[in-house]
Amino acid sequence: MDFTFEAISAEEYDRQRASYEPLTDALRRLIDVGIHTEVDDATVQQALTHLAAAEELLGRQQRSGRSTLRHADTGRPVAWANPAVGLRNAIAPPMRIEHEPDGTCWSEFTLGPAYEGPPGWVHGGIAALVLDHLLGEVASDGLTQPRFTGTISLRYLRGTPLGPLRAEAFVERSEGAKTFARGYLMDADGVTVEADGVFITPAWARDAG
Amino acid sequence: MDFTFEAISAEEYDRQRASYEPLTDALRRLIDVGIHTEVDDATVQQALTHLAAAEELLGRQQRSGRSTLRHADTGRPVAWANPAVGLRNAIAPPMRIEHEPDGTCWSEFTLGPAYEGPPGWVHGGIAALVLDHLLGEVASDGLTQPRFTGTISLRYLRGTPLGPLRAEAFVERSEGAKTFARGYLMDADGVTVEADGVFITPAWARDAG
Repeated sequence: MDFTFEAISAEEYDRQRASYEPLTDALRRLIDVGIHTEVDDATVQQALTHLAAAEELLGRQQRSGRSTLRHADTGRPVAWANPAVGLRNAIAPPMRIEHEPDGTCWSEFTLGPAYEGPPGWVHGGIAALVLDHLLGEVASDGLTQPRFTGTISLRYLRGTPLGPLRAEAFVERSEGAKTFARGYLMDADGVTVEADGVFITPAWARDAG
Repeated sequence: MDFTFEAISAEEYDRQRASYEPLTDALRRLIDVGIHTEVDDATVQQALTHLAAAEELLGRQQRSGRSTLRHADTGRPVAWANPAVGLRNAIAPPMRIEHEPDGTCWSEFTLGPAYEGPPGWVHGGIAALVLDHLLGEVASDGLTQPRFTGTISLRYLRGTPLGPLRAEAFVERSEGAKTFARGYLMDADGVTVEADGVFITPAWARDAG
């Protein structure tokens, strides 16, 4: 596959974000309201007419999706489409990830009814998605280094309630092509899920170090 | 929290599914088209008007979400809201899970651009979501037994391409309150991710065995 990189200025990023973020937020609200609606079929049909009109409007001009946007100032990927952090992907909560000067990462975010597994609790696989992403970010210096998940192990200490949550991750050590990262998912009472991951620098990127 | 169970007949299930599944499918298409749209701000505003109208219509009558629907004939939870398999949750691909007489589970499903991590590849955390769910299903006899994820370990053998995929899971063995399950994510060329999970029967459910 042929992928290219495209730089985006801070101004253009802000302009696109101001225009498209409300759209993604509207889709997130629709996902939630769609899960639990009990309106009759005639009302569903009316809603479908509006959704089809929105789809037609938004489909008039589409990015190819084959080029990766990077911030012109930091070189970090924009990751707008990412299912964990993407501001333009309605599947993402989204997590907004903070990078500390010491290399650790953290994020505070809210998981609502769309992420529910057992009644009232976050789906275990969503906890895995959140932690896999955060460990990958910390292991790859904010996605600036090519590092792929080799293995990840998750220990579920107790249920994670829906609502406001925090996740943290840090690099434990590096050995050759392997980077060992560790992270936690937490509610107000402490850790609910622990994660350990081994991330691999691919062979083609090893000489560059 | 106070949760109740509510049985749904096959006829009522079919009626609701016929009415609400096209709605979820429309939202899935909007998620995809929303990620890559490049239309100008005036067109975004027009789309937002339609989305707000749909949200208002669907919000007129909402289930509380506090009761769990079960199929009257099989006793299995409907899991309509589930982020991995929920026919009414636009976040879910959705996986439709087949239960074999020998207890194994499998699912064939397609992961499109909304599940992308590295360009062209499935996000590692989405592979984890899919496998955590399938291992949980097989360990709990199709969600009829209360069993919660204790630990899950994933080995990423190579990248998983976006597109049609298959996942399989089976129970390896049980020891007291622990059920050991194993599963695979596969593309047309074979296994891309392996998963091992330990699922725990909670203390309150152990006497019932």
